[in-house]
Amino acid sequence: MRAAILTVGTELLVGHVVNTNATFLTAALNELGFDVYFQLVVGDNRVRIREALSFLEERAELIVLTGGLGPTDDDLTRDAVAEHLGLGLKEDEVWLAKIESRKESRGQTPLPQEGRQALLLEGATPFPNEVGLALGMAVRARGHTYVLLPGPPGELVPMFERHVAPYLRETFPGGRPLVSRYLRFLGLEEGALFARIEDLIREQGDPTIAPYTEEGEVILRLATRAATPEEAREKLAPLERAVLERLGPYFYGEGKDTTVARVLLDELVARGATLVTAESCTGGELASRFVAEAGASKVYLGGFIPYATDRKAAWLGLSPRKLAEEGAVSAWTAVELARAARRLGGSTYALSTTCAAGPAPADGKPVGTAFVGLSAPDGDRAYALRLCGSRGHVRVRLAKLALFFLLRAVRGEDAPADGGPDRGQSADEEAGGERDA
Amino acid sequence: MRAAILTVGTELLVGHVVNTNATFLTAALNELGFDVYFQLVVGDNRVRIREALSFLEERAELIVLTGGLGPTDDDLTRDAVAEHLGLGLKEDEVWLAKIESRKESRGQTPLPQEGRQALLLEGATPFPNEVGLALGMAVRARGHTYVLLPGPPGELVPMFERHVAPYLRETFPGGRPLVSRYLRFLGLEEGALFARIEDLIREQGDPTIAPYTEEGEVILRLATRAATPEEAREKLAPLERAVLERLGPYFYGEGKDTTVARVLLDELVARGATLVTAESCTGGELASRFVAEAGASKVYLGGFIPYATDRKAAWLGLSPRKLAEEGAVSAWTAVELARAARRLGGSTYALSTTCAAGPAPADGKPVGTAFVGLSAPDGDRAYALRLCGSRGHVRVRLAKLALFFLLRAVRGEDAPADGGPDRGQSADEEAGGERDA
Repeated sequence: MRAAILTVGTELLVGHVVNTNATFLTAALNELGFDVYFQLVVGDNRVRIREALSFLEERAELIVLTGGLGPTDDDLTRDAVAEHLGLGLKEDEVWLAKIESRKESRGQTPLPQEGRQALLLEGATPFPNEVGLALGMAVRARGHTYVLLPGPPGELVPMFERHVAPYLRETFPGGRPLVSRYLRFLGLEEGALFARIEDLIREQGDPTIAPYTEEGEVILRLATRAATPEEAREKLAPLERAVLERLGPYFYGEGKDTTVARVLLDELVARGATLVTAESCTGGELASRFVAEAGASKVYLGGFIPYATDRKAAWLGLSPRKLAEEGAVSAWTAVELARAARRLGGSTYALSTTCAAGPAPADGKPVGTAFVGLSAPDGDRAYALRLCGSRGHVRVRLAKLALFFLLRAVRGEDAPADGGPDRGQSADEEAGGERDA
Repeated sequence: MRAAILTVGTELLVGHVVNTNATFLTAALNELGFDVYFQLVVGDNRVRIREALSFLEERAELIVLTGGLGPTDDDLTRDAVAEHLGLGLKEDEVWLAKIESRKESRGQTPLPQEGRQALLLEGATPFPNEVGLALGMAVRARGHTYVLLPGPPGELVPMFERHVAPYLRETFPGGRPLVSRYLRFLGLEEGALFARIEDLIREQGDPTIAPYTEEGEVILRLATRAATPEEAREKLAPLERAVLERLGPYFYGEGKDTTVARVLLDELVARGATLVTAESCTGGELASRFVAEAGASKVYLGGFIPYATDRKAAWLGLSPRKLAEEGAVSAWTAVELARAARRLGGSTYALSTTCAAGPAPADGKPVGTAFVGLSAPDGDRAYALRLCGSRGHVRVRLAKLALFFLLRAVRGEDAPADGGPDRGQSADEEAGGERDA
């Protein structure tokens, strides 16, 4: 079953708008058992929409169009498809009444052109829009199925999930859905991680394995087509085992949308443990990632951001003399910040960060020099790191690594030694190593 | 001058990888004076790459391909283009030596297949890759220009900027570049903001005006084609004036990549002022956005994250009795947090946040109830807000609004009254209003 995606919208052709609809639809159609061979983007232009349809019809049975269903004269998708297929358009009375009542409930009178959003292709199945006013639809003609969806992602996604996916399952039964598992890794630089599984990537067949990176972490996507979840699990298991045999210490969790903060939060909740933070260079990034997870208040008591060096002394009681001797970016400072945060916060654990995030060196240390401090009931320690990339990259990666190191410690596992620095930078022998302090 | 973009890569057709290359190239080509009418995505498949080329050749003079230039058997773009155009491929000796020396400098021996990355189409202009090993190129044939670029954005973007843009400027002189201005707004909900400029959007011609939203702020992009920057400025100025006449109080800055934190930081640096923060529900998000900007240490001394209610008392000295009476999510708490932070931090200004971010109500307050506290040399105040959306949305929007309110205060301007709540939610008459406390 071949599918193609046609995105209509001039805004995509002047730049700065990313086509997330195509990405969403591609993944969703794969999960329904379709092969997507082409994605095409055209502007709000009747001729070009028809040219695109002609091209795609020779190459797919299902064509999903998004965009151009609004009320203005620029919204041409419905008309172009009607003309192309020689089908009439008529107003869906039920939906027209819905548009009117929705506008009235907001104290507005519907403008005449808004009725266009209730136009339905002859013989089409309507898909209600639970967020906006444009009606979606599917129509079968010339041996093809055409699905027309609104452009705003906030309207498209719920319409697809609630109405289009069930329609497609019924209309195209017997597909072999693409089933994916996402394995997530931290603590090993991308190039070093890929090198350890290079043969698995090179010699892949079915299942496939695709690595990608996301804000300083590496994700391996294992995927296969299977008729049932059991079949998928069986097909994916050997590859997953092979990956984890090589990369186990860097693996923190599984799932398309999970985060290291989520995994750590669940682990701490399960243990009835609490957390306090003291961040210098990450400046709230670590805490914010933790607090972003629902239920954080069960574990997170609060934190300190002693950004200026003298606030490290004034707020957390670090010795000004030792601070001057050791430097603000040092293992000593990281440990002392964590220790003080745990004492002042009265928590089970405390995490701290200090680094030279760039663009200029800090405290005489080169950009990328970083330390995580961890204070725990069984003692205190620091992790020395050497991170590469922009200021933003260093801060985000350090925040995630701090959460990862705590996760490992809570589980009674050591932090793994980092396999190497970011590409093109010099190695640091201490990278990822643990130190007593 | 018509251009089309052909992205090659099966990873885009199984989902979850967003085609940011197409977005980047589209914007860049518009800025060079091209009209981009089609974007097409195909997998790593020789036949489909050629089908795509045939379709695009009828519709554009310039075809920019990305992806499929790597060393593996899946990397077919070079071969498909060579076959399609009837051109030979031969190794670029200079680049081949470069690949070998780069591998050797990493202590590696180049694999035989890596030489493929030095293959150049007959008669092509090579574009060096300053990050990776694959050579880019441009070739003119059959009245068309074909540009082949590597797929990784980290390689494509610098190659385009350093080599491709100059090549295209020389090869296609006399274009009328698309020039854009980005006006950024906070403090007015999207729907209410659009309503105030609906006629400008509806009746637009040249220049165009396109609204979009980004993490809770609204951006208006004004764009026109012009031969010179002066011509662009003159054409854009009247529309910009019309927009700012209606939306002035919500405008915070101009630029594609600027942030409210950046604008505030520059304003505080210019005044020699300093900042301390005390965040409850934003949990470091506000501080992190500020610290993300280079040079933050000139202004930002540090902050507190008194997340648990009793830490508000213990760390910042808020009266436990008053906290219980007023509630942790209240104007009183916001003001007291800011006041205490400013006193403990010794800063010119202090900002605080407290809210019910969701998913569950907090402190008996419905999700979205939020307060910003501001302590300044001329007095203390709280801003009451009602925010909609997910936990993440509430936290990010509140952090940005806090920065915006301080920016207004520093400039001696009041915070504007919010024009209304997020779509579909009930209004709150206090939204954005200022209160003495």
